[in-house]
Amino acid sequence: MSNISLLSKSKSFNGEVRRYSHKSNSLSCDMKFHVYVPPKSSTPSSVLWFLSGLTCTDENFIQKSGAIQFASQNNIFLVCPDTSPRGIIIENPEDKWQGPGFGAGYYLDATTDKYKTHFNMFTYISKELFDLINQEFKDTINVNKHSIFGHSMGGLGAISLFIKTNGQYKSVSAFSPISNPTECDWSLHSFKQYLGSENKDSWLQYDPCHLLKNYDGKPFDLMVDQGSADEFLNDLKFDNLQLSCKENSKINLIARLQDGYNHGYFYISTFIKDHIEYHSKYLNN
Amino acid sequence: MSNISLLSKSKSFNGEVRRYSHKSNSLSCDMKFHVYVPPKSSTPSSVLWFLSGLTCTDENFIQKSGAIQFASQNNIFLVCPDTSPRGIIIENPEDKWQGPGFGAGYYLDATTDKYKTHFNMFTYISKELFDLINQEFKDTINVNKHSIFGHSMGGLGAISLFIKTNGQYKSVSAFSPISNPTECDWSLHSFKQYLGSENKDSWLQYDPCHLLKNYDGKPFDLMVDQGSADEFLNDLKFDNLQLSCKENSKINLIARLQDGYNHGYFYISTFIKDHIEYHSKYLNN
Repeated sequence: MSNISLLSKSKSFNGEVRRYSHKSNSLSCDMKFHVYVPPKSSTPSSVLWFLSGLTCTDENFIQKSGAIQFASQNNIFLVCPDTSPRGIIIENPEDKWQGPGFGAGYYLDATTDKYKTHFNMFTYISKELFDLINQEFKDTINVNKHSIFGHSMGGLGAISLFIKTNGQYKSVSAFSPISNPTECDWSLHSFKQYLGSENKDSWLQYDPCHLLKNYDGKPFDLMVDQGSADEFLNDLKFDNLQLSCKENSKINLIARLQDGYNHGYFYISTFIKDHIEYHSKYLNN
Repeated sequence: MSNISLLSKSKSFNGEVRRYSHKSNSLSCDMKFHVYVPPKSSTPSSVLWFLSGLTCTDENFIQKSGAIQFASQNNIFLVCPDTSPRGIIIENPEDKWQGPGFGAGYYLDATTDKYKTHFNMFTYISKELFDLINQEFKDTINVNKHSIFGHSMGGLGAISLFIKTNGQYKSVSAFSPISNPTECDWSLHSFKQYLGSENKDSWLQYDPCHLLKNYDGKPFDLMVDQGSADEFLNDLKFDNLQLSCKENSKINLIARLQDGYNHGYFYISTFIKDHIEYHSKYLNN
């Protein structure tokens, strides 16, 4: 029996966009996600995960990015998870869009009493949903070919998950990631709420700059786009990301400053082709 | 002094998405619209209007259709108007998504006392906003090169405006238009509310099937896509559209039944390239 329920499906570029719900153990709530199943092919599809940014759900990317066209062309199965647990009660919620709270899970496993029951997006994405996708779509996908990318908070998540899962993903890229959350007031505030206000070491375990600087595994490439007109440029710490990668010879950063582009989906859609073709090189060869 | 106020702008595919507000005389309210200004070129841009469907605003198409990529490539300036007057008080509103009311202007000029002050989308799109775009963007666009297309209620609008404005638009196409609103219960209900419950002649003046059957001007091509899995297939009357065009030798209908596609933007985005390149043939030659 399947562990996922189909909520909707729509044909697109000869494949199919589907939305599912399922019961998540790691988050202790029901969750939704979108997939794009590319057109039938003699070769199993490779899997590309997109992690979304603050305030987003499983819907923004699949509706607005223009990714489907290129996923279809490259036999890529897209997975678009939500950005936090849903439908639960948070006592004394902060109601800030930067979190902590709904739409702001930061792809970490919380340890504080207030958040540890539900806010475990690291485990949810990298283990629970990963296994679920491999199990439910094993007839369609190549379970050994996964890559990951994301936007803003989801760029943080993509880099963090890539590094911390030891080869689970073949390649990684990011649009305008929150690169150094422990040096940004509002993301640090969320980290403190999720991980404890004194536990600097545990914050650093989810900080891309720290992880990149201290990475000691197999060398890898990291493609990152950053718009020069990004309204959050000061907070995202693109400079720190570049410095961290420069300090570590294991990482080949492909940093692309995109002149005049801001932080939104009109920017992402402009460069989505590049990112999907980038991952396709790693996945389909 | 400009008659439009810039609300937001975002670079996309080397051009710029902009949202404006302005005071509309024909609708007696403030309105918003989106444009896409393609990258600077030595040739003025041609203008392509997209009319959206029921419940939509000026946002759906520009965010979800994937049109910008192809508008950018073909030096096309997109205009995306809203679908009804906004911010006014409708006494005893019906609160049906098929109208009459907000998001359901049907691109006609109402004549009933209840709706005639505000619901004049025909005049708004074909005259007021048309003149405003030509005036405000005269340094960017070729004011003699406009075409029009639309989706669902906006497909109705595109066909109706194309026929009734006598050469104002160079070409026309539609995604899944409401083709025969006087033969569909819920669109007929809105027509009656806007135009009077006894005025069948006035309803027919906004009914694509009637207009196409009785058209007696210069021959023209009409490209129409229709998904076979459209949830509104019975109401849209694609068959009647085909019959009406068959009866009139002045009209060359290019009818494309798209197997397995439904009514939403995942379908539109699949075929948007074809439509923009179709209009580009007429606009850029």
